[in-house]
Amino acid sequence: MTGANEDLVLAERRGLVLVLTFNRPAKLNAWTDELEDRYFDLLDAAEDDPEVRALVVTGAGRGFCAGADLTHLQAVGDVTDLPDRRPRDVPIELRKPLIGAVNGVAAGLGMVEALYCDVRFASPAARFTTAFAQRGLIAEYGISWLLPRLVGRSRATDLLLSSRMVEVEEALRIGLVDHLVPDGAVVDAAVAYAEELSTHCSPTSMAVIKDQLQNDADGTYAESVARAEGLMLQAFRGVDLVEGVQSHLDKRTPTFPSLPVRSSHVPV
Amino acid sequence: MTGANEDLVLAERRGLVLVLTFNRPAKLNAWTDELEDRYFDLLDAAEDDPEVRALVVTGAGRGFCAGADLTHLQAVGDVTDLPDRRPRDVPIELRKPLIGAVNGVAAGLGMVEALYCDVRFASPAARFTTAFAQRGLIAEYGISWLLPRLVGRSRATDLLLSSRMVEVEEALRIGLVDHLVPDGAVVDAAVAYAEELSTHCSPTSMAVIKDQLQNDADGTYAESVARAEGLMLQAFRGVDLVEGVQSHLDKRTPTFPSLPVRSSHVPV
Amino acid sequence: MTGANEDLVLAERRGLVLVLTFNRPAKLNAWTDELEDRYFDLLDAAEDDPEVRALVVTGAGRGFCAGADLTHLQAVGDVTDLPDRRPRDVPIELRKPLIGAVNGVAAGLGMVEALYCDVRFASPAARFTTAFAQRGLIAEYGISWLLPRLVGRSRATDLLLSSRMVEVEEALRIGLVDHLVPDGAVVDAAVAYAEELSTHCSPTSMAVIKDQLQNDADGTYAESVARAEGLMLQAFRGVDLVEGVQSHLDKRTPTFPSLPVRSSHVPV
Repeated sequence: MTGANEDLVLAERRGLVLVLTFNRPAKLNAWTDELEDRYFDLLDAAEDDPEVRALVVTGAGRGFCAGADLTHLQAVGDVTDLPDRRPRDVPIELRKPLIGAVNGVAAGLGMVEALYCDVRFASPAARFTTAFAQRGLIAEYGISWLLPRLVGRSRATDLLLSSRMVEVEEALRIGLVDHLVPDGAVVDAAVAYAEELSTHCSPTSMAVIKDQLQNDADGTYAESVARAEGLMLQAFRGVDLVEGVQSHLDKRTPTFPSLPVRSSHVPV
Repeated sequence: MTGANEDLVLAERRGLVLVLTFNRPAKLNAWTDELEDRYFDLLDAAEDDPEVRALVVTGAGRGFCAGADLTHLQAVGDVTDLPDRRPRDVPIELRKPLIGAVNGVAAGLGMVEALYCDVRFASPAARFTTAFAQRGLIAEYGISWLLPRLVGRSRATDLLLSSRMVEVEEALRIGLVDHLVPDGAVVDAAVAYAEELSTHCSPTSMAVIKDQLQNDADGTYAESVARAEGLMLQAFRGVDLVEGVQSHLDKRTPTFPSLPVRSSHVPV
Repeated sequence: MTGANEDLVLAERRGLVLVLTFNRPAKLNAWTDELEDRYFDLLDAAEDDPEVRALVVTGAGRGFCAGADLTHLQAVGDVTDLPDRRPRDVPIELRKPLIGAVNGVAAGLGMVEALYCDVRFASPAARFTTAFAQRGLIAEYGISWLLPRLVGRSRATDLLLSSRMVEVEEALRIGLVDHLVPDGAVVDAAVAYAEELSTHCSPTSMAVIKDQLQNDADGTYAESVARAEGLMLQAFRGVDLVEGVQSHLDKRTPTFPSLPVRSSHVPV
């Protein structure tokens, strides 16, 4: 990784929260392989950093991310195989909460990256377009799986077929965005939320719950209940339950241990 | 079952509707094994009572249910196995409609019990919190399966990770609550709705439809259609269709037979 | 097919959009086998007509479709087998976008037909009722699979158990309807939307995306991503991507090829 690549995504610590900023503002933060490498490297490092309990991702300048750089797309016209890239699902595999602070347009792959966030805050300038059908592309990187589970089947079809631009009020109404905040405040609001998670919620609980949600998106209710029973037993044996209950009774802030680094981590 | 336990959940018949009331108001109706036994016993009895066609569940006093009694949770810190309890999914297995009348806070397991209801009415005082992540617990009893199917993936993640309190207006907007009614009217509104179901809808149709919804939450559209075809044939041979169509043409209230008791019941 | 049957569903071309109109206005367009045959024949023909890129379906007169003709339902009381009809899922198998212009009541099977549309526009007079439970019927033709994926589990249960009438404002709020338009404008609005799809979006992209959405309704995120990767490679080798990107850079309307007729169509 070169020093130049480091500028493609900025990283700033705010307490227990790591704020990542896509940083190609002149291109509305359009996606390139180099930007992706930098972003995924930062996510990877944050996973095992005990000082980071939650992450916020946003864009520099007017856009969140305008999608794949079109200069790149023009070049793939005669591609016969996909370049041998790392898996694209680094953000969705993250054990720690990833909060989106959508400050402007999120288009195509940029919209996918916004949807990979666990929770989305948006400024009045946030806008979303799938863009794929207007470019002769398909529903990429799992968006045809994610979007109906966020906004429902019909709204997902509407957005994926038409590629129409969705403004923030509609995005909030249909569940594409979770929290709408005033102009200029979106990063601060997302950081404040991430700080709440970092301060009051057990990192282990959050990692287990994220994994439950991903598993339970498929399969039956009975399978979910059976899995939850095993995980509940594990929780009953852990230190976090004792601290969670005691701090609640004491009306004080809990002190939960950080997530272990993944090498020593028993998969949940 | 002791007489004292009978007071833990009150039961009152209103026409064809059975109203159950969690009744530990000094503890915001916090959940105990004894309360659960009493609640599940009442649900069990109602299943086979031909005079009961629909149920309403609410809480006495200011709360709906504050979740597991914390005195209980403190004791489980050194538990190595779950107590050998009856299955927790009695409410979700019910063949008859279970209508929630959420009158106040529904927290943790209390929120799960509210979500087990088929439809939720809420008063302005109703509030919801998952609570688990703040106590060092996990997403218990199938809530990680249920909640995304009620409010969408992202909102479910927001509520499960943050444990933030959701007020009733947001609950209505995101689909956590189906009907918001004025202060003091929530039980009457839920009973009126349950009476409509009891009077105008076929008990067999409702039992079959509940079963279809549970089955079709998993699996493909084609599987659902194939299953519906078999069930439609059964309905074509039943007496309820004749009465349903004739009463509609006559513009009169239909007279549908009650559900058979389960021992003689051919599973749908 | 007789000339009389041709009047049961009217067909009118508006540019690249085919507008189909259920045409039994005196019966609120109640469904019969003959109407179904005519509707499905028209959908079938449109699939392979290169001049048709999107479809709109609406109802003549005051209703959209009042459901199965009750004279028919009265006759089935002693049916022992379903008539050997063609599959009911012709609309949902369509490769081209099917846009609903719901102009009035959509009840029972008529509501199912509305839900089979990819996207729904509605006039202020649009209303929905499942109707099945009040007639002694079950959740027919996949509605117990479709409805929860459109509006969420609890709202679907509410509508399927109660058969209550849902007015258009609620329909919009819960996701049963995607776009509410002023009185008298619903067909024009749906046609304008369908024209946008026909003009700006790749027919192949839309067919692939519809197929992805149907497949990804079941299964895991990882399966969806793997499938999308293969489809993306196909798109990279197609002419639509080149035209989609180039027209975007040129700020001009793209010229995408029509879908091939199905006999020569490689299944997506």
